[in-house]
Amino acid sequence: MAPQGQVTSVPDDGLTTRQRRNRPLVIVHTGEMKGKSTAAFGLALRGWNQGWPIGVFQFVKSARWKVGEENALRALGEVHERTGQGAPVDWFKMGSGWSWTQRGPLDDHAAAAAEGWERIKADLAAQTYGLLVLDEFTYVIEWGWVDVEDVVATLAARPGFQHVVITGRRAHPRLVAAADLVVEMTKVKHPMDAGQKGQRGIEW
Amino acid sequence: MAPQGQVTSVPDDGLTTRQRRNRPLVIVHTGEMKGKSTAAFGLALRGWNQGWPIGVFQFVKSARWKVGEENALRALGEVHERTGQGAPVDWFKMGSGWSWTQRGPLDDHAAAAAEGWERIKADLAAQTYGLLVLDEFTYVIEWGWVDVEDVVATLAARPGFQHVVITGRRAHPRLVAAADLVVEMTKVKHPMDAGQKGQRGIEW
Repeated sequence: MAPQGQVTSVPDDGLTTRQRRNRPLVIVHTGEMKGKSTAAFGLALRGWNQGWPIGVFQFVKSARWKVGEENALRALGEVHERTGQGAPVDWFKMGSGWSWTQRGPLDDHAAAAAEGWERIKADLAAQTYGLLVLDEFTYVIEWGWVDVEDVVATLAARPGFQHVVITGRRAHPRLVAAADLVVEMTKVKHPMDAGQKGQRGIEW
Repeated sequence: MAPQGQVTSVPDDGLTTRQRRNRPLVIVHTGEMKGKSTAAFGLALRGWNQGWPIGVFQFVKSARWKVGEENALRALGEVHERTGQGAPVDWFKMGSGWSWTQRGPLDDHAAAAAEGWERIKADLAAQTYGLLVLDEFTYVIEWGWVDVEDVVATLAARPGFQHVVITGRRAHPRLVAAADLVVEMTKVKHPMDAGQKGQRGIEW
């Protein structure tokens, strides 16, 4: 008879119980409503507190980058540098040139997106981060700038313990199928319905 | 003829154009799926960057408080104290005694919830915060610990510029009617469907 609390058979998957419980996830935040990116950055707060290095990759050039989240998460990265609390934070943006490129802005958005994805593949292989946020990455797939089969295969084969959060509307069915957790943000009511314009601190 | 870009009539509501554009919102994150609180804390990142004092009130005692978000947001509050960047952050929890009470834990959850709501009313009147997160507050309404009519009237009458974010499932119809923005998080796919248990850094 096995001692109390001890399992009598163990799956033959080469994982410890803890590893099996703490499985790295592919998370997709999709749907028409806001909150997709916001919730991803909220997850980054938890990851930071766990000591997981955070890598944010913002795809799709925008006049309104998420500067609030960027400034706050960068400040948390600085807290880590200064005190050791939390984890380091890297934040990369497409469009104004990824920060690792030597050249200036890429006018070719497809090429810039492909370049970003290659960097992510390299970081996944190197296990640079514990939590990666691929913000608005669904569009890059939708527009064919990055091959969805390559994405799915790369995520499935990623080594170690790396959570990946992908945001954006209309997530590709192949991506949804490959994800562990998919949340859809749907609109119940929005102030723009009443003619309200987007505002600082709420929309960006 | 009016000069280009100048409005020819102005609503008689006593607000400047900027105030009318930047209207304080009541936001509700509801639905069965996770991401409700996470997105609220993501909004807190933006608010912090705007210099809005952040007040988080966690209702419903839990063995798994959102310690990740709490530690990260408290660290941002410390960044503000040290450097002036961002804004101050206060974080209050029900159940182990709100931090403003002199007495110990309140066994009477209804009384503890009512006490928290009275404090929030006082803070709204005093305009202590620019962004208030009332986490899991929908349950407190659902269980009758706080009167929904009092909540709606208090929110409608709050002075100045104070955004209020309320999270939790099954938001009361009166609260939904009173809110400016309501997002519902719905499940598409969850790892617990496949027997996966909740894990650190993702669930809390």
